[in-house]
Amino acid sequence: MAASSQNTSVGFIGLGIMGKAMARNILKAGFKLTVFNRTPEKAAELVQEGALLAESPAAVAAASDIVFTCVPDTPDVEKVLFGPGGVVEGAEAGMVVIDCSTISATATMEFAARLKEHEIDLVDSPVSGGPQGAVNGTLSCMIGGDDAVVTRCMPVFEAIGKTFVHIGPTGAGQITKSCNQLVICATMMGMSEAVALCKKQGIDPEKMRQALVGGAARSFVMENHCKRLIDETLDPGFRAALMLKDMKLAMTVGRDAGVFMPSTTLATQMLTALSETERAGLDSAAVGLVFQELSGIR
Amino acid sequence: MAASSQNTSVGFIGLGIMGKAMARNILKAGFKLTVFNRTPEKAAELVQEGALLAESPAAVAAASDIVFTCVPDTPDVEKVLFGPGGVVEGAEAGMVVIDCSTISATATMEFAARLKEHEIDLVDSPVSGGPQGAVNGTLSCMIGGDDAVVTRCMPVFEAIGKTFVHIGPTGAGQITKSCNQLVICATMMGMSEAVALCKKQGIDPEKMRQALVGGAARSFVMENHCKRLIDETLDPGFRAALMLKDMKLAMTVGRDAGVFMPSTTLATQMLTALSETERAGLDSAAVGLVFQELSGIR
Repeated sequence: MAASSQNTSVGFIGLGIMGKAMARNILKAGFKLTVFNRTPEKAAELVQEGALLAESPAAVAAASDIVFTCVPDTPDVEKVLFGPGGVVEGAEAGMVVIDCSTISATATMEFAARLKEHEIDLVDSPVSGGPQGAVNGTLSCMIGGDDAVVTRCMPVFEAIGKTFVHIGPTGAGQITKSCNQLVICATMMGMSEAVALCKKQGIDPEKMRQALVGGAARSFVMENHCKRLIDETLDPGFRAALMLKDMKLAMTVGRDAGVFMPSTTLATQMLTALSETERAGLDSAAVGLVFQELSGIR
Repeated sequence: MAASSQNTSVGFIGLGIMGKAMARNILKAGFKLTVFNRTPEKAAELVQEGALLAESPAAVAAASDIVFTCVPDTPDVEKVLFGPGGVVEGAEAGMVVIDCSTISATATMEFAARLKEHEIDLVDSPVSGGPQGAVNGTLSCMIGGDDAVVTRCMPVFEAIGKTFVHIGPTGAGQITKSCNQLVICATMMGMSEAVALCKKQGIDPEKMRQALVGGAARSFVMENHCKRLIDETLDPGFRAALMLKDMKLAMTVGRDAGVFMPSTTLATQMLTALSETERAGLDSAAVGLVFQELSGIR
């Protein structure tokens, strides 16, 4: 039976910028919502709006049919699922975990197998669209999981996103998210070189950008990241440290699968250079500054 | 005074797929048009439609106020301008050459200086938008040249294109075209890795592509080149050999200016690998096949 706000209790673990906005949209859609966050103060607004605050991931699981996790990295997912007071301690058989974190695809498949021992299904659904997409409920969800389980979860998905592609079995969502991030970074390598070339030649990079977005070089990256780089408005946005984490995830899945990935290797190195020069907190588009420095511009 | 179809005779040298379509749109806009092509048979249709056929670039220049050149590479432009029977032999002082070829920015600046000795102005205006854009008169033009000269030429430009960005002085159009091509190639490096990763992991790359074009990884390349690669519909399109030529032009301008360009270096190498395995005639998106082969997929 598909989930509905009448017959389904939802849990949400991890109320960061993304998670809090997603949880709010689930609440607005009429689902009973139980939340947990390591720092409980971050749940205060949601509680005022009608969410129940649980004391542990286990308590969230005990109150819920479907539990979302949205935490920073692979070890954080492992901890909320399997650590002390974790999801498996409270869950009944038949519960579903939807992990919206961007983490290792390999670990996701391992976690799915471990959850299966408790008769819990894991759906991985990393998202694209950023904080604004989370607030507006217009996220793009890259979904991996069993057909029947994903179908059952769709009404809850529809509360948080707009575009849903069920890619394949558990782990396929994470692999697709890696593809998403590495394509963005590959384009950022090109835009960084283009901006450096224009600056070095005394050409207004903004005029170049305007010409490119009118033709076959157009992209979200040229519209947004390139504009940020040119204007040097580099407050995140999406932090370079997180993009570096995502490139390392892509490198790991590529290494495990044996895939030739020179562009992702380059992007990883350039983001490493940005991070190691104390700029990990800037927007990922700041990687273009390194290209300019290495061209003697800055 | 701005050019108009009443007071301006136009010449066109180089009636390839792009040039012929552009020349036809100039004719349709009501300009008197004189054409030259190395293989005169390719001019037959245009002559039926009202164009005059000249016997040499010099004869085109003698009959024209503004002469377009649209030929494959830097030496071809040099030949039609300065070779035997070239443009400078027939041109009167005050004539303008608009070069729509994609050639070396450095050579463009040299050609401009040599033309200036004959009191001829050079405007570089490489285009983006492909054969379909040329036919429909919707090309994007990246224009380099003196303000007054470019302004004078605008009515003729409007016959061939839709988007016009006057980037800067002569040569700036070519540098911007290099930026356009290197950003496309950088994105193609990423999409090639993404498709290889999905194939190696047993994930349908088309589902990945659909997820990506709905989010921040969206681009013309993911919409078009990536689809071609997945479907293996690799008839050009835009031939890999031409894209390799364009990457070499970008590398040259980057080298001359002293710009750090690792992504363009990578793209040049991957396109070289495609060309040297006898696939230079395929669409440039075929570069993704090399990534698959190097990942043990094909």
